[in-house]
Amino acid sequence: MRVVDTLSTCLEKCTKTIKETKCPRTNMTQRQDGEQTPLLNSNAHSTSSHTSGTDRSDTMWRSMSGNSLLNHRMTPRQRMIASNGSVANDLEALEYAYINESVGTLIEDPEATSAANEYTRIQEDRLLNVKYKSMDYDTCENKLFFEEETKKGYKFVLRKQLFRWVVMFFIGVFTGLVAAAIDIVIETVTSKKYLLIKDFVDKCVKVENDCLTVPLLIFCALNAASTFLAACLVVFVSPCAAGSGIPQIKCYLNGVIIPEVVRIKTLAAKAIGVAFSVIGGLAVGKEGPMIHSGAVIAAGISQGKSATFKCDFRILEYFRSDQEKRDFVSGGAAAGVAAAFGAPVGGVLFSLEEGASFWNQSLTWRILFASMTATFTLNVMLSWYHKVPWSLSYPGLISFGIFEEDNYLQYNGVELLFFVVMGCIGGLLGGLFNYINYKLSVLRIRHIYRRRNKLLEAVIVAMVTAASGYLLVYLSTDCESLGKDPTEHPVQMFCRDGEYNVMASLFFQTPEASVRSLFHDKTGTYHPLTLGIFALLYFLLATWTYGLQVPSGLFIPLLLTGAAWGRLCGIGLGYLLKDQESWLHIYPGKYALIGAAAMLGGVVRMTISLTVILMEATGSVSFGLPIMLVLMCSKWVGDLFNEGIYDIHVQLAGVPFLNWEASSLTYGVPASRVMSHPVVTLLPEEKVERIYSILTKYPHDGFPIVDNYIPDLAESATFGRFRGMILRSQLIYLLKSKAFKPQNGEEPVVGMVTRSDLARFRVEFTKGKLHLVELQLSKPLEPM
Amino acid sequence: MRVVDTLSTCLEKCTKTIKETKCPRTNMTQRQDGEQTPLLNSNAHSTSSHTSGTDRSDTMWRSMSGNSLLNHRMTPRQRMIASNGSVANDLEALEYAYINESVGTLIEDPEATSAANEYTRIQEDRLLNVKYKSMDYDTCENKLFFEEETKKGYKFVLRKQLFRWVVMFFIGVFTGLVAAAIDIVIETVTSKKYLLIKDFVDKCVKVENDCLTVPLLIFCALNAASTFLAACLVVFVSPCAAGSGIPQIKCYLNGVIIPEVVRIKTLAAKAIGVAFSVIGGLAVGKEGPMIHSGAVIAAGISQGKSATFKCDFRILEYFRSDQEKRDFVSGGAAAGVAAAFGAPVGGVLFSLEEGASFWNQSLTWRILFASMTATFTLNVMLSWYHKVPWSLSYPGLISFGIFEEDNYLQYNGVELLFFVVMGCIGGLLGGLFNYINYKLSVLRIRHIYRRRNKLLEAVIVAMVTAASGYLLVYLSTDCESLGKDPTEHPVQMFCRDGEYNVMASLFFQTPEASVRSLFHDKTGTYHPLTLGIFALLYFLLATWTYGLQVPSGLFIPLLLTGAAWGRLCGIGLGYLLKDQESWLHIYPGKYALIGAAAMLGGVVRMTISLTVILMEATGSVSFGLPIMLVLMCSKWVGDLFNEGIYDIHVQLAGVPFLNWEASSLTYGVPASRVMSHPVVTLLPEEKVERIYSILTKYPHDGFPIVDNYIPDLAESATFGRFRGMILRSQLIYLLKSKAFKPQNGEEPVVGMVTRSDLARFRVEFTKGKLHLVELQLSKPLEPM
Repeated sequence: MRVVDTLSTCLEKCTKTIKETKCPRTNMTQRQDGEQTPLLNSNAHSTSSHTSGTDRSDTMWRSMSGNSLLNHRMTPRQRMIASNGSVANDLEALEYAYINESVGTLIEDPEATSAANEYTRIQEDRLLNVKYKSMDYDTCENKLFFEEETKKGYKFVLRKQLFRWVVMFFIGVFTGLVAAAIDIVIETVTSKKYLLIKDFVDKCVKVENDCLTVPLLIFCALNAASTFLAACLVVFVSPCAAGSGIPQIKCYLNGVIIPEVVRIKTLAAKAIGVAFSVIGGLAVGKEGPMIHSGAVIAAGISQGKSATFKCDFRILEYFRSDQEKRDFVSGGAAAGVAAAFGAPVGGVLFSLEEGASFWNQSLTWRILFASMTATFTLNVMLSWYHKVPWSLSYPGLISFGIFEEDNYLQYNGVELLFFVVMGCIGGLLGGLFNYINYKLSVLRIRHIYRRRNKLLEAVIVAMVTAASGYLLVYLSTDCESLGKDPTEHPVQMFCRDGEYNVMASLFFQTPEASVRSLFHDKTGTYHPLTLGIFALLYFLLATWTYGLQVPSGLFIPLLLTGAAWGRLCGIGLGYLLKDQESWLHIYPGKYALIGAAAMLGGVVRMTISLTVILMEATGSVSFGLPIMLVLMCSKWVGDLFNEGIYDIHVQLAGVPFLNWEASSLTYGVPASRVMSHPVVTLLPEEKVERIYSILTKYPHDGFPIVDNYIPDLAESATFGRFRGMILRSQLIYLLKSKAFKPQNGEEPVVGMVTRSDLARFRVEFTKGKLHLVELQLSKPLEPM
Repeated sequence: MRVVDTLSTCLEKCTKTIKETKCPRTNMTQRQDGEQTPLLNSNAHSTSSHTSGTDRSDTMWRSMSGNSLLNHRMTPRQRMIASNGSVANDLEALEYAYINESVGTLIEDPEATSAANEYTRIQEDRLLNVKYKSMDYDTCENKLFFEEETKKGYKFVLRKQLFRWVVMFFIGVFTGLVAAAIDIVIETVTSKKYLLIKDFVDKCVKVENDCLTVPLLIFCALNAASTFLAACLVVFVSPCAAGSGIPQIKCYLNGVIIPEVVRIKTLAAKAIGVAFSVIGGLAVGKEGPMIHSGAVIAAGISQGKSATFKCDFRILEYFRSDQEKRDFVSGGAAAGVAAAFGAPVGGVLFSLEEGASFWNQSLTWRILFASMTATFTLNVMLSWYHKVPWSLSYPGLISFGIFEEDNYLQYNGVELLFFVVMGCIGGLLGGLFNYINYKLSVLRIRHIYRRRNKLLEAVIVAMVTAASGYLLVYLSTDCESLGKDPTEHPVQMFCRDGEYNVMASLFFQTPEASVRSLFHDKTGTYHPLTLGIFALLYFLLATWTYGLQVPSGLFIPLLLTGAAWGRLCGIGLGYLLKDQESWLHIYPGKYALIGAAAMLGGVVRMTISLTVILMEATGSVSFGLPIMLVLMCSKWVGDLFNEGIYDIHVQLAGVPFLNWEASSLTYGVPASRVMSHPVVTLLPEEKVERIYSILTKYPHDGFPIVDNYIPDLAESATFGRFRGMILRSQLIYLLKSKAFKPQNGEEPVVGMVTRSDLARFRVEFTKGKLHLVELQLSKPLEPM
């Protein structure tokens, strides 16, 4: 299929294809008789000698060696120890030899990092190479592979295609179920919690006037305990489950292996942890983690095995390649988005925008199928839970509610101007948010690396959040009469009978419910001061919280902050323009929606996917244009100051992420400024000794095969002609099989661009904005 | 930008990039002193010598030669005559020399086509090559280009980027305006027409009992006249404006030059023509043509010049390359979809699905922007026209109306089963539709090629449509009491006072309104027999109409047919399951929607874009899953029989379309089975004489540059090592400039895959399903 795939592009490309693959094929057809296929066929583009990608060889390898060396359960050091003895184990250990060596000195000892400034360029290289590896998203294009594929026949292709749909279906169903479970648990527990606090508060104020510290203490203790549990799950079970998981999924889809990111134990820590952290009253949402959860579910189902439980169901083995797994994971991420926001199309676009490196029509349709299934499953479960089966009004975890008021989401041409200004404000605030969070994250990387400190920080944040919220409620004098507000547990506090404390209605319910309140409460419900203080406090809390060692989504706190200041803007505009009321109706709820979009756009800087997600969550096609305008403005303004929050965290983790498009500033920068030199190359014919020593000495995962090159001439300008690429895993397999046969060809190699080259180049290029020192200081994607 | 673009993919690809572009760059850096840039630098991948693509050279060329030779206004023969005399003109004529020769013998004389069976393979090649050329979607990657780009600086890049947005904005606005104008004209005129007929009919029946032939004659005459005008516009002004235009836009986005497809005169013929053909009462819609209109608007605005009006505003000249134009045209097509269906996201996905060859995050966002602007503009215009300014309830030309009835779009798990079955029925009917339409189209190609016959056929179809509709209304005894139905002009016919003829309500209004009636009319409005007869008749009429020489959309007739039999299914199911009414509510309107989706999916076989378009048109996220299920089933069932209708017409027109993915059946088919042999190659150093003779003798638009090859050895297995590709336009430019300097290198070329190779291969491969004879018989994309 790949041959014709590559054919299906255009004339020029076709000629290239011929150059790369056809030529040897025709030669072979011409002299098919009496010649065995060379196992190390380094002819043209593809050099792999086993037939179906890296993962397959891993599987075979594992079954041969019969131990758990490769299932990533042990530390590299343990692996080294375990692998002493047999030759096979020795070879296998090559996969980790280098990691072991340098992780031991550079990473495993946090105290050593303070001396990082003195490391030379080579050591920087090693560090970058050691932490993250590239996945193998290229299909092998060689004779053996095509022969095997042809042998399998058309039926096999059809069956594989069918199972792709079946797997996507189950990904959707399970993602929907997990989302429903999380939602139901959080709803039930928080409702009980807030009811308890409310009763205490109201009793205290009414009956015994001065016992208000008791509910404060209970509130703080409950929140701290819940947050502590969430942090424990992250710190002790799966550090990868911290944060929203979106940066990790971005990296995964981009082709970087992040250890343990799609393990079942990560899913468990994430799903249970996010419930605890939302119950713990932190300024977090449960939406971001759903995306990560969906991705893990996808990886688990599609591979038919689990590394966490060390079991292998021996099904779906033909999906065990990096490429197939990536496709399913992107489906899972999309299903997660769909379940989180009730936005199946937005989910697909999210996968495409973040996945960045692939677009395939039929895959996209399958992804949409998974998303649809997820939102449908969630809808059925939640409708059933809320005792309105088949009303299907719960498509996502966060629903913006129905903007049903007459003319509610209509807007005048003049209002578009206000929206643009609010978009710019969102961009400014987003830039500020990202800056503060960046500085905090750097501080965290430098000073909070011990487990107990991480736990402590999480508990402190939880208590500060609880206490400051409580304090604001205590100090607030904003009262509203009951019956007008949709809040479940109105707290009276110092208000008169028949009234409730408005600040309490914002703090003493789940953030999702508060967002809905800000969108839908009638004009005049909130005092401007209440909104201002709330927005400021929540902004600061959200900045501090994102990056804690708990599973935490960023969308809800941003929506909440944005909705608060957006509503404030709406109230202000309504006041200023009250003379124009005959033709201009300013609904504060609409401005809350605009503010929420602006804030979100200013921080995360997503484009088309965020637009569609918000459109679907709002449920209005005609309000799409204002949302898009606002997102454009906030992104453009924010981009003047820094990158999106996810990109910042990806950079802080030192992941060599390859963006969709290079920045316009790198216009005209030649690859020669970026690439590594000298290049570690292999000849078509190599001695085992040299291969072994190269594998031991260099951490690279792939080596170009060249000819016309004398290896000892280190300072040469060119490294021979390029004949193909061989992967570390393939070399190890070949070493074991001992099957070689060289062939000739030529194409000069003068340098080599790896992910770490690009990362280093980026640091050089953005002079001073981001330092390699900080890259070195960071842990592998933990502190997100 | 392109250097770093290509870098941003992955490790292996990067090594390839180095191989292809970096090596010469480094070499050059190393010996920059005292060496002039070679103009014919055939080093590595890119061989273009002028700096910014083909189109630029055209522009320069045109201004130099100072005549209208290249603006495509003359026939090739005229051009040949006009170009006699100067050497420059002689060279220019090379672009058309071959076309002239073979078009003259093969195409321009329709009578000669009957002897086509005897043509040899080489002549087939020529035919395929002559009719369609590839566009140049690759960026030139050579030293001169990068130097010029670097010189322009960052500011230029920013300005270009800004103008991309500005142009997209205007594309959206103008597309929306055109859509609004078409809609308003059609609404006004048809309303008058049906009012006239209704008055006549009702008067005839009541007053003078037997004058019913008079309104019939008036009806037929009005429709025939209107259709005649539409057909005249197509036949005499722009043959390209026939049909929906979607196949043409598909081809254009796929990289095939279809003559005149994005001209302003095509837009005029299309926009005015579609109004006439809808007013003419044909079974056509105005939605498909909007997509074509949007594309033409995009091409017009982005290029800042018009070939139809022979004017050049000298603005936006940096967008005059095939690639930039393609990007804008895809934006225009998306804006057209958005305006047609009120589906901005569906529009983006349509562009992506049909464009097939590109996906770029920022481009996609711009396309969404254009779509949003288009739907917004249309909304504002139509709201204003309907005297409800700012209610913004007209996002598209066809609106499915609001499914507001309580629980209307809810569904039970059991119903999903019915939906699947209906999807399969849709697939069967779609396959049948495509088969009949294919046979009819072949008949048309063979027998209806004279202009007067084309006009005659259109008029006949219009009269048959009018007469059969009238006859059905006359025979129908299905009466309903007034007041229940939303139809504007209820016709009483033979019904009692206070009642109206239901069949007349389907025929005597625009098809869009009929679709809405079928979706929303209360249970029991239609007699099953009425629906059955209507569906059958409309199915046959739609099959016959699509392919006529009038601008005609296919969506509405399909929606209408599908809605009719879908509603029939709903009524049937409701009757069968009336005992289960306690838990299962069958709303016929919902089944009409499902039937419409099934019919549409079965005929056009679009996937994700159609799903999203229907979702957005329905306005319900939770009903997305059933729609998707139905579309999946209908596509899969339909694919068992034939291809989608657009693909069939693309094939009939003989366009060498490159699909997104090759069919699974071509698994393991090597390029060597497909490619041309021998290959016309050029050496790095060539005599002008040979280049001139090659350009005269061969129609190819690009030639591989090779070395190590002796040109006279025709039967060699390899044609030297590939060094790059040079385009016909570049060669002509070089011949004029007389600047050459050769360089060495190697990469063997053994064959060459062109679009026509693939088309021929496809014919060979699908044994008997589609014959090359028919390809040869067809006209360039006219008969769609």
